[in-house]
Amino acid sequence: MKNKGAKRAVVLLSGGLDSATVLYLARAKGYTCSCLIFDYGQLHKKEVLRARRIAEEAGCAYKILKISLPWKGSALLDRKIKIPEKIGRAIPATYVPSRNIIFLSFAASFAEAIGAHAIFIGAHAQDYSGYPDCRPEFITAFGRAIKTGTCAGPNILAPLLGKNKSQIILMGHKLGVPFELTWSCYRGAKTPCLKCDSCRYRAKGFKEAGIVDPLIS
Amino acid sequence: MKNKGAKRAVVLLSGGLDSATVLYLARAKGYTCSCLIFDYGQLHKKEVLRARRIAEEAGCAYKILKISLPWKGSALLDRKIKIPEKIGRAIPATYVPSRNIIFLSFAASFAEAIGAHAIFIGAHAQDYSGYPDCRPEFITAFGRAIKTGTCAGPNILAPLLGKNKSQIILMGHKLGVPFELTWSCYRGAKTPCLKCDSCRYRAKGFKEAGIVDPLIS
Repeated sequence: MKNKGAKRAVVLLSGGLDSATVLYLARAKGYTCSCLIFDYGQLHKKEVLRARRIAEEAGCAYKILKISLPWKGSALLDRKIKIPEKIGRAIPATYVPSRNIIFLSFAASFAEAIGAHAIFIGAHAQDYSGYPDCRPEFITAFGRAIKTGTCAGPNILAPLLGKNKSQIILMGHKLGVPFELTWSCYRGAKTPCLKCDSCRYRAKGFKEAGIVDPLIS
Repeated sequence: MKNKGAKRAVVLLSGGLDSATVLYLARAKGYTCSCLIFDYGQLHKKEVLRARRIAEEAGCAYKILKISLPWKGSALLDRKIKIPEKIGRAIPATYVPSRNIIFLSFAASFAEAIGAHAIFIGAHAQDYSGYPDCRPEFITAFGRAIKTGTCAGPNILAPLLGKNKSQIILMGHKLGVPFELTWSCYRGAKTPCLKCDSCRYRAKGFKEAGIVDPLIS
């Protein structure tokens, strides 16, 4: 691979299997990756701890950024709102307004500061019931905004757009993603609840991919 | 004025005279304004305190959001970098990578949470030596991204784009902006340094507008 190490990327890492797969993909493409992990007031810290372990396992630098969103209104930030337990078509109660918009903005700032020309995000529209800031048209529009609003003009790369969960799991499997370190459950118990919609998507994906989820085996 | 009080807006407030003018303009247009003030690790806290006083004086709700940008590289965040003392054409050392991008992202989240349909920002390209995230083309591109990436799709309004400092000062003067509460100096001493480029732009603007700056009179 040419210029290995010369390409720098910021990778948004959540602790879930999508962003872990994106990290391993970016690494396989020869990028030197700096991971950006957000501690944004989630109900549990497990995601953040898992994201850190994944970055360490991949041998990548990382930064954990603590941000506060003092407006509630999402089941992921507010214990009073019930976490949905079935897969639906409407925008779910777990939607955090503009979460990806905020994450990508910090990534753009970080990319400028370290001279990275790419920002990787694990967004995919097919799953996660249509959060508006996972849509392909949003990623494209935001990419254009970043190009005009920064000096370096990093590219936003969302290689999972259009892929479903089982395709992502197959891709991650080939890349050697440590799925046992990833965490998808919206609840932060010792083991996944297997009831929230994120657990259901994960189980469905592993089943369709014909792979055993090491986290629950 | 029709539907006064029915229109809600988020106003980005920095403590400077541009955003104060935008707040008074939005209020005059009948918007119920919620101000968003950032404590982002500036070298001094004077801006934040002034922004709060301006919001209080205008009788508007406000939120102060503390965010950290753990990558340095701007004279506004890093004491080791010299604050420029002349007005130049290049992007100055006071540039904070993606600052407006980050601020607008939080504003989009806040707007969704409180049901505001407009976000006001005091960006203007003519002054401030071409920070890329003050450019009109950035504001337009970001507005499109917000439309696709949020449920509510708030509009981004930057009524000062294309105006110069003296025009803004004249506008603020007519609207009754309490200029004595605004703070432009990059340094946080008791009185403005009158040497940094922000002080120079302010002095030039007041002179051209034919108005005495109450802050230094």
